[in-house]
Parts: sequence; C-alpha cells; structure tokens
Amino acid sequence: MTRRAAAGMFPATVPPAIRREGSMKTYLDCIPCFFKQAIQACTMLELDKDHSKQILDRVALALPSFPLAATPPEMGQLIHKIIRQETGNPDPYKELKHRSNEIAFTLYPALKQKVKTAQDPLLKAVELAIAGNIIDYGAQSDLDLQNELDKIIALEEQRIDREDSRLFNYSGFIDSLKKARTILYLADNAGEIVFDKILIEEIITIYPDKEIHVAVRGGPIINDCTLEDAGQCGLDKTTHCISNGSDSPGTLVHLCSGEFQALYNKSDLIISKGQGNFESLVDEKKNIFYLFMVKCRVLSADLHCELRDIVLKKGA
Amino acid sequence: MTRRAAAGMFPATVPPAIRREGSMKTYLDCIPCFFKQAIQACTMLELDKDHSKQILDRVALALPSFPLAATPPEMGQLIHKIIRQETGNPDPYKELKHRSNEIAFTLYPALKQKVKTAQDPLLKAVELAIAGNIIDYGAQSDLDLQNELDKIIALEEQRIDREDSRLFNYSGFIDSLKKARTILYLADNAGEIVFDKILIEEIITIYPDKEIHVAVRGGPIINDCTLEDAGQCGLDKTTHCISNGSDSPGTLVHLCSGEFQALYNKSDLIISKGQGNFESLVDEKKNIFYLFMVKCRVLSADLHCELRDIVLKKGA
Repeated sequence: MTRRAAAGMFPATVPPAIRREGSMKTYLDCIPCFFKQAIQACTMLELDKDHSKQILDRVALALPSFPLAATPPEMGQLIHKIIRQETGNPDPYKELKHRSNEIAFTLYPALKQKVKTAQDPLLKAVELAIAGNIIDYGAQSDLDLQNELDKIIALEEQRIDREDSRLFNYSGFIDSLKKARTILYLADNAGEIVFDKILIEEIITIYPDKEIHVAVRGGPIINDCTLEDAGQCGLDKTTHCISNGSDSPGTLVHLCSGEFQALYNKSDLIISKGQGNFESLVDEKKNIFYLFMVKCRVLSADLHCELRDIVLKKGA
Repeated sequence: MTRRAAAGMFPATVPPAIRREGSMKTYLDCIPCFFKQAIQACTMLELDKDHSKQILDRVALALPSFPLAATPPEMGQLIHKIIRQETGNPDPYKELKHRSNEIAFTLYPALKQKVKTAQDPLLKAVELAIAGNIIDYGAQSDLDLQNELDKIIALEEQRIDREDSRLFNYSGFIDSLKKARTILYLADNAGEIVFDKILIEEIITIYPDKEIHVAVRGGPIINDCTLEDAGQCGLDKTTHCISNGSDSPGTLVHLCSGEFQALYNKSDLIISKGQGNFESLVDEKKNIFYLFMVKCRVLSADLHCELRDIVLKKGA
C-alpha cells in the first residue's frame, strides 16, 4: 500500500469529543510548535523527508478543525495518532520509554539518599520530582540521558524561586497534603516516574494515613508513562496505579474513563505533573497543585517566569 | 460577507507554476517558520486571534500542495497572497515601506560620507549594503527603526568573516565587476534600497562604463521594494530600474516578465540582495553574487555560519 493510500484511509479528522467552546486555550504561537513537535518525532523515528512531509501535511489538514478553545494536548494527541498510523507502529516510543525507566531507576538509591539526608526531605523530594519533568525524549543517546539525569539530581540547572508563592507554593502544598484524605497523582513521562516514586514514598512516610492513587496514560502517547512503565519502575508496588483511559498527552477529564473520573471527583488533592497536564486542567475548579518545568516560551510569558523554571503552582 | 465566505471565494491553492520537481529546496524546519511568518504578519497588521487563525488555517490547507522541491519564497508568496485576500488590502505594508524609505533616506548623507572616507570605499559600500539587509518589518516603531539603522551604519553588530572567501568573496566580486559589461542588481526590501543606491553609485563612480539595471518586485509583497519605493528613494535617478513582473518575495525567474528574463539572460553579473533572492536562485547556473544577512537557523546550518552573519557569496 502506498503511503498516500494509507493516509487516505485515516482521514486526519479531529476527534469528535474535542472541545470547541470556551476561552482561548491554545495560543497562535502554539501552531508553529505543533509542526515542530511533529518534525521532532519524525526525526527521532528516523523517517525520511518525504514521509515526514506527508505527516506534516496531515497535521496541516487537521488544523482548521482545531479551534483555539481546545488545548495543546488535544492537538498533541492528534499529531501522535497520525504518526502511529503513518508508521504503522502502535508505540513508537516503547524502546525509548523502557530505556528511560531503566537508566532513571539506576539513580533510585542515590535519589533516596539525597532526600533522606536533606534538611527538609519532602521539599527535596518535591524539587527532584519537578526537576525530573525535564527528561526529554529528544535525548540522542543513553549517555545524553545519563548526563541529563546527573544534572537533575544535582539540581544544578534549575531555577527555583522559593520566595515566590505564585510559582512555588510549597507551604500551600503542605497544607493541602495535611488536610487531604484522598490524593490523585497524575504522572507524566517515563523515566520521570522514578522521581515521582521517590516523592510518593516520601509522602507515604510522612502521612501514612492517606489514600494515594497514581493515574497514567491509557495508551501509548509520545514518551508518556503507561501502566507498563509504572510496573517497570515498581510504582505499582508503592501505591495503587490506574490507567486514565485516554491517550492524550495531558488529562482531558471528559475523555477519561469512568473509573478515572470517579477517583478524580473523589480526590481532595490532585498532584499534577508536567506541562501537558497543566495545559489541559488549568481551568478546572479542583484543589490541584501543578508540578512542572516550564518548557516553552508561550507558557513562560503567560506565567511571567523563565524557560526551564521549576513550578509548584496552586490551581485556580 | 463573512470571513469564512471570503475565504471560500479564494481557495488557497498553490499557483500552478510552482516547481514540483527537483532536489529538496525547502527544509522540513522551514514549515513551522511559514506559520511563524504568517503570525508575524497578522500581529503586525493587528488582526484579531480568530481572523489570524483563519489565515493560518488557509496556509495549512495549502501545505500539502507545496512540495519540498519548491523554494521558501514560493510559500511566502502564497502566504502573503492569502493575507492580502483576507484583509482585503492589496498592499498591507505600504505605509511601513514608505516610512522605512523615508527614515533610511535621512541617513543618505552620512552613508555617503562613511563610504567616501573609508580606506576601501567599495568594500565599505558592499558591507553597508549587506548590513542594510537586516532592516526588519518587525520593527515596532520609527524609533526602533532609527536605532536599527544607527547600528547598521556603525557596522557594530554584524559579523563579517573577511578571511573566509566561501562566505565573503570580495576579491571574486571585484574581479566579476571588472569583467562585467551588463550588471543586474536584484533589490530586496524597502529602506534597504537606500543602501543599495549607495553601493550602485559607488560602482558607477569606479566603473562608469558599465550598464547597470536594478530589478524590483512586480507587485506588493511584504516589505519588498517595488518601483514606487525605488522612485521614493531616487534609485530610478541613479540607474535604470525595472519591475521583475512577479510578486514573489524572491526571484523565481520562470515566473518573471519577458523583459526581466531578457535582462537576466543578457547580464554578465547578477548582484542578488537578500535571503529570499538567494533561496530562489541558489541553483541557477549564472555568475551571481549573493549579498545577504543570514536570517534563519536553517540557512546558517546549511552555510556553516552564524545567524546574522554578513555574506557575500559567489553562486554555483
């Protein structure tokens, strides 16, 4: 079958559940970035130029159906669906996720030690968990990833403005932790979940009476964490893990499973990791703390902070 | 008429004359940049978000018809055609071009003096003409433009590697000038043509026996120079000016007028200003010298130089 014919079989329509109403959630400046993301994926997957162009064409054809009232992760979901269809590979990042988990897990003892010996172990676990959000599927080799992880663990390159409660609301987070009975932790990337595991274990140590659930993606999407990755890192031994039932690179609650929605509604505190979860949940009226590294200039401008800043932000 | 209806009247098809065969001339990384350029134009024209999104949608719908064998200026031509249609304005940059010419022209006496007193007046005129290529339609105010021009005239911020003949082939340029009987000078932007006028006057002073023609765009396209701009700066008093008969932001010879093509074929030396002319002519088998400032990372990577480098490059 020619690629063109394959493309014809999968018209690049936007999923019917996409949100079309409400305030603008995607900036115009996100649009060039959608194409950059697709190119980055094509490069990572070593697709040739013509095949890559065909993928970009399908992304382009989908753009008019994508309203600015939808969120960037909704477009991300669509872009990577096109890539899975075009490559015929249901999980193009599988091997990369596996390696990320494996390499990050070698750091587990050092991370535990770092947290244990810190003046404020919970604060250190929080900072490391957010720093772990930088793990980038763009890393070219295991060595790159190892170097990146070494920097993360040293918290060398991350700017944390601990004085600005708007961007790093640690006292509010502690208050919420103390009061919460049920906590839902929304994971983000493979590899990064080793850092999440450390934070969750620290929370369990300090607050052993909390009911803690971790939600991961419901299907392969970029390098985002699924139940398979949670299993590989033993996160399912630490606490209860569920699939959110959706393969968006964010958390679009209305598209998630009933099981996830029930847990989401029941939880007193949501700990949301990563920019994709932030972008998709930002208008939710829930007690959410967003832990992420700022990865794009659109968001750093919106939050009045710097690129790569570490953010611990209370939701609306 | 609603905007949607207006868009329907002008389907965003690629001009039939677009080149579809040959080696890749547009890089995948140019594609996000096409959308950036459209956003930059929408911002400059103060279009609202919805109208801007509609323009981006039309650019997106045109992308599948745009092969990588075509050149970036061909896509630029299409993008700005869409913008002219969507705004109902046949020359959205008219006022900006007028002001650029006006402000740049106030520098004319200082530029003349700078060239006259230089150790090598022709070299100084060449360097200033290339530095003038930075004039950016993104300048937010007359003051910005004035500041930019002050920097250009001081040659403060431009990196010129005079030792690298691959990127700055001044001796080759002089040789070609000496030998040429007919010279065709391809202008680029409004404002910048004041700098071109200085260079052309210097060439005429040194080589009074040459036949020199200047070609400008055949219709309004971004801030590119047309006959109106040439007239405003008195370039038509300096030497013979013609329209190239095309409104591409480059020189697509096959789309230019017969008059232009005849002059192009007859000329012994083509002096090509700006990145758009370079991108559209790069494979031509003519004696061409490209004078431009490197304005994008795709090109700086291709040429193994830095962004904003000043280039005087001999054609293939």
